[in-house]
Order: sequence, then structure tokens, then C-alpha cells
Amino acid sequence: MQAMHISPILTEIFGLTMIALALKALLLGTCTAATRGRLKSFLHAEDAAWLGGAHVNPDPEAVARFGRAHRNDLENLLPFFIAGVFYVIAGGPVWAGAIYCGAFAIGRVLHTFAYLHARPALRRNGYTIGFLAIVAISLHAAWLLTRSLS
Amino acid sequence: MQAMHISPILTEIFGLTMIALALKALLLGTCTAATRGRLKSFLHAEDAAWLGGAHVNPDPEAVARFGRAHRNDLENLLPFFIAGVFYVIAGGPVWAGAIYCGAFAIGRVLHTFAYLHARPALRRNGYTIGFLAIVAISLHAAWLLTRSLS
Amino acid sequence: MQAMHISPILTEIFGLTMIALALKALLLGTCTAATRGRLKSFLHAEDAAWLGGAHVNPDPEAVARFGRAHRNDLENLLPFFIAGVFYVIAGGPVWAGAIYCGAFAIGRVLHTFAYLHARPALRRNGYTIGFLAIVAISLHAAWLLTRSLS
Repeated sequence: MQAMHISPILTEIFGLTMIALALKALLLGTCTAATRGRLKSFLHAEDAAWLGGAHVNPDPEAVARFGRAHRNDLENLLPFFIAGVFYVIAGGPVWAGAIYCGAFAIGRVLHTFAYLHARPALRRNGYTIGFLAIVAISLHAAWLLTRSLS
Repeated sequence: MQAMHISPILTEIFGLTMIALALKALLLGTCTAATRGRLKSFLHAEDAAWLGGAHVNPDPEAVARFGRAHRNDLENLLPFFIAGVFYVIAGGPVWAGAIYCGAFAIGRVLHTFAYLHARPALRRNGYTIGFLAIVAISLHAAWLLTRSLS
Repeated sequence: MQAMHISPILTEIFGLTMIALALKALLLGTCTAATRGRLKSFLHAEDAAWLGGAHVNPDPEAVARFGRAHRNDLENLLPFFIAGVFYVIAGGPVWAGAIYCGAFAIGRVLHTFAYLHARPALRRNGYTIGFLAIVAISLHAAWLLTRSLS
């Protein structure tokens, strides 16, 4: 890595993408809790006693699905965030960074939508788009970081 | 975003909060393993054979509770860390950042305490405090990032 | 914290370590999906209907093992990444940072290898190496951050 040229516009694109997707993931946690409340089905005995419902462990499918979509989000958010931080710090080009962020955002929104609506082909496609965006920004960032060693 | 003014004092507050909460989360993983050992109840057949205990899958409730508290920590740490990084980079005010960090730390400590002691109302309140801190720092960071576009 | 002296070489070491380990974690997600496909055993009813297999919930052990190795990766990647970011920003020495990154990488690769090959002692040792690397870089980063207060 030669020097650090942090682009304000790239930071803005990357930051807004990450914050929006992190809030989307957080929202899935809220859906998990809200669905337990709606179904009066609680994973913990103390919640069932407190809120007057059934103690159900493991969660019913409607609850577990939010949990799995949430977990899948975190599994993808962290690698993209890690790679993106180094991509920005290493001075990656704005246009490519914008494409990676856009593709990742589209892929993850499609994935969550498809997961919650039980559309498996769309879920796989959304996942694949996000996956490819992670791989692309990771390899690009790694290449930028190693430029000075070559 | 106009320019980057990274505040050393804000970086210190944010950094110490994040490191302390990440170590707290890590400690829950240690508790999971230690509780399996104490109960001689192992999730993997190879562990039961190695350490001389029972092969129990899924984990007993005492173990699973640490795992869920741990997972909940990670689900909240990542969004707060993401938003906080951009908040600091975008030059957010120190006083507001300190409030977000303090509220988040209090909320997460209360959440873990309440989770492990099966106190559901306190757990919900701790979660809610942390949740509101994430939403607040996220919206504030997004606003700071987009200032230059308005 | 007195000032920020971000070392390009440390950023490169830290960045390449993080990107490589994040891609390793991501690969475990791919293994989870591929193993479901190979066993024709699907966690979701819609996948079983779409791809012509059995609807099996929870996942069979071969699938769940990838999932647990993956989860364990994320539980450790996030704390190390958080501490590492502040270590680099606070101007930690390159040599110590390189040791932390190297130990963490070795520990996590050993952990994943041992998890997938059901070798519990090696899995524990790999975990412990990674754990100690997290604790060391966390305490070092916290000390660097607080220097200006002492």
C-alpha cells in the first residue's frame, strides 16, 4: 500500500450502504421478538410466565425464519464491511466501490425479501449477488493493499 | 460529507466502549464452553469421548442461554460498530457520541445481566436502550455523511 | 490517545489477515449450502420442493458442523477486527500487531481444520490461540487509547 487517500464520496456511499443494511438486519431481530409476541410463543420460560403465553423451544418456523435471515445477514455484512474498510483506506476507485456497494445492497435486500416470502430461487440469486460482491471487493482490497509489495 | 475531522477523544471513548463490549461478548463464548464442561454435557460426540461426558444435542438450557446472550450481543455490536465508525470519520460531535456509547454500553450490560438471570422485563429494557442507541447513532451518522449532498 | 499515526505496513498486514479470514468464514457458509445439496437434505420446505429432496429440520450433523464452525469464526472475527481497528488507528507498534495477526490467523485456521475433522484437542488449542490474540490486541489497543488520560 503506497499511501492512504480516503475519498469522501466513497466513504459516503460505503457508509450509507452499510448503515442501511445494518439497520435492515437489526429490524429482523425486532421481527423475531414481535412474532414471538404475536404467536404468544416464547423461547424462554420466564417470558412465557411474564407475558402469558406458551414456552416453545425451539422457536416455531415463523420465528426461526426471521432468525435465520438475520443470521445470514450478519454472516455477509461482516466480511463486506471488513473488506470495504480496507478498500476505502487503500484508496480504491470510487466507481468500482460504488458498484460493489450497489450490488451488495441489491443482493442482500433481495435475499431478505425472498427468505421471508419463501422464494428459494430468488433467495439463492440474492445471496449469490451479495456473495460475488464480497469476493470482488475483498480481492480488490487485497490487491490494493499488496500493491507496494509487488 | 465535507471533510474528515477524526476526534482523538471521541475515538478513545468509542474504542474503549467497543473493546470492552467485544470482550464481554467473547466471555460469553467462554461461559458456553465452561458450562458444557461443568455439566459434562458436550454438543459434539468427539468432545464427549475425549472429556468423558454425555453427548447432548441440542445443548441443555443453561448452555444454550449463554449462546443466545452471545448471539444477541453480536447482532447488536456489529450495527453499532458500523455506525460508530462512520460517525467518528464523519466528524460527529463528541458529546452526542459519548451519549450514544454510554447508552449502548449500559443497555448491553443490562441485557446480558438480565438474560443470564432470567429477568425478562429488565432484559427487554436493556435491549431497548441498546437498540435506540444503535438507531440514533446510525441516523446521526447517515445525516453527517449526506450533509454535503444537501 | 495522543495522535493518529496509521502505519501503511501494519494496515496491510492487518487488512490481508482480516480479508483472508473473512473469506474463510464466508466459505463455510458455502459449505453449509453445498452439503445440504449433496445430502438432498434441506432446512426449508420450499427448498426441498424446489430441488427435490427431504425437508430436514434441524440440519443433519454434517451440515450443522459447518454452521457451528462458521458461527464460531464470526464470534471471534468481530472482536479481533474491532480491537485491530483501534490498535492501528492508535498507532500500535508494527511488530506486535504482526504477532497478534499471525497468531490469530494460525489459531483460526487450526480451529476450522480441527472442527471439520472432529479433532477436539486441536480445536481447543486453535480456539485458545485465537482467543489469546484477541485478548492481547484488545488490552494493547485499550492501553494505547488511554495513554493520553494517564
